[in-house]
Amino acid sequence: MSRIVYVNGEYVPEEEAKISVFDRGFLFADGVYEVTSVLEGRLVDFAGHITRLRRSLSELEMASPCTDEALEAIHRELIARNNLTEGVIYLQVTRGAADRDFAYPAEGTQPSLVLFTQDKTLIDTKAARDGIKVASVPDIRWGRRDIKTVQLLAPSMCKMAAKAQGADDAWMVEDGFVTEGTSNNAYIVTGDGTLVTRNLSNAILHGITRAAVLRMAREAQIKVEERPFTIDEAKAAREAFVTAASSFVNPVVEIDGVSLGDGTPGPIARRLREIYIEESLKTAT
Amino acid sequence: MSRIVYVNGEYVPEEEAKISVFDRGFLFADGVYEVTSVLEGRLVDFAGHITRLRRSLSELEMASPCTDEALEAIHRELIARNNLTEGVIYLQVTRGAADRDFAYPAEGTQPSLVLFTQDKTLIDTKAARDGIKVASVPDIRWGRRDIKTVQLLAPSMCKMAAKAQGADDAWMVEDGFVTEGTSNNAYIVTGDGTLVTRNLSNAILHGITRAAVLRMAREAQIKVEERPFTIDEAKAAREAFVTAASSFVNPVVEIDGVSLGDGTPGPIARRLREIYIEESLKTAT
Repeated sequence: MSRIVYVNGEYVPEEEAKISVFDRGFLFADGVYEVTSVLEGRLVDFAGHITRLRRSLSELEMASPCTDEALEAIHRELIARNNLTEGVIYLQVTRGAADRDFAYPAEGTQPSLVLFTQDKTLIDTKAARDGIKVASVPDIRWGRRDIKTVQLLAPSMCKMAAKAQGADDAWMVEDGFVTEGTSNNAYIVTGDGTLVTRNLSNAILHGITRAAVLRMAREAQIKVEERPFTIDEAKAAREAFVTAASSFVNPVVEIDGVSLGDGTPGPIARRLREIYIEESLKTAT
Repeated sequence: MSRIVYVNGEYVPEEEAKISVFDRGFLFADGVYEVTSVLEGRLVDFAGHITRLRRSLSELEMASPCTDEALEAIHRELIARNNLTEGVIYLQVTRGAADRDFAYPAEGTQPSLVLFTQDKTLIDTKAARDGIKVASVPDIRWGRRDIKTVQLLAPSMCKMAAKAQGADDAWMVEDGFVTEGTSNNAYIVTGDGTLVTRNLSNAILHGITRAAVLRMAREAQIKVEERPFTIDEAKAAREAFVTAASSFVNPVVEIDGVSLGDGTPGPIARRLREIYIEESLKTAT
């Protein structure tokens, strides 16, 4: 059965979901996006995603396609039309279609808005049970990773480079320090039980799930340090994990071929995943 | 009158020129492009553009949509259908449409191919007559600028930042040295008449026009140095210019508010533009 996709005001079968070849999302990667998880047919931390979307649009001086209420209504309509109980909703806004020019198009150009669902298991996954392997690769992305743009070829290439090494994902490294995973934030737990993750800056995405998990860790009396760490420190860590809106908390069990601890998911990663899912099921709207 | 645009095997009016919202060009900027100039209805340095396209595809392990001969035939058909005498042909190849995933889609996924024309004056332009003003801005692009990808939001932002300062374009600066313009290579002429432009590396695009202009400069007995230069050196230069396939050689008459020489296009820029156009008119195919 074909998905129903939202494109610029219309709900259409996925085969008919098309945008102009002159769309700046296609020609210039001039677009931003959000991915919101759906559990039991409800949205996880929707307010957080909308807040970040507004910030991305503002940083790029990009017009908004519609109100927050309209965006929420489209999310709900897509859940209903696609009978989505567990999965994600992808949302992309671009600066719209205009004849090709590096300069932004005239004010008043209608931004494009595309949303689609992806039906997928989020809670009971192999990655959560067994953990994932990561490989370090140089971070070749641009300088404004705090803006969630569709300039995603670089992380896509990094993921493929990691896969070529037999890993599941990459941890990207810049100036000797881990920035983040290709589509997730990166964490380690040091020998004394301190949770370490890179501090917020233009070097990493400001994860919605990151913010929630750090809050939960502090509430659980886990000591948290927000600072850069190296791959060597990570290899010597007691455990490691990644967080993302669509995968919650995933344990990392191997870094560049080195097993962490006994090579199975660590207790802090497992506990934080449990807390995150429990709270998301309670608060999803 | 509407342009005729080529999209995945079909020639369609521009209003109907659409691609799937699942195209990786739209979702991941997972695409490469070329822009070939057209003079008197013929293609300028087509072989150079095709060679660079093949390299871009190869660097990204992206499948080719068709043969060089087929690409050339589409260029010629678009020239004919759009009665194009002077302007450019834009070509974009993407990794094709697939459900959204950072990992590349399965082998055998059909790449997307889009081409369209832009009717524009190339020879007798205001920029060539009066020169352009550039402003320096930090280069925030990714690490593989030698691959001509559609991850173009960063240079687009740089151009807008320069325009906000009253300039026509930006010269991007990294680690104290100019990399290039937002869609062109950058050159200065020092006090002793030496032509200086940044050496080839992953830091800049390997311009087709750059290669031709450097060859012509050497043939004209101009001393050429390929090395990085600073904005301060550029401000003190005798003259400056930029090159690109769609603008040939454009004189730069002001850098960060400082006029170069007497503030009019320099003799070397004017001479090289003349030679480039003369040769292009002779060799266009």
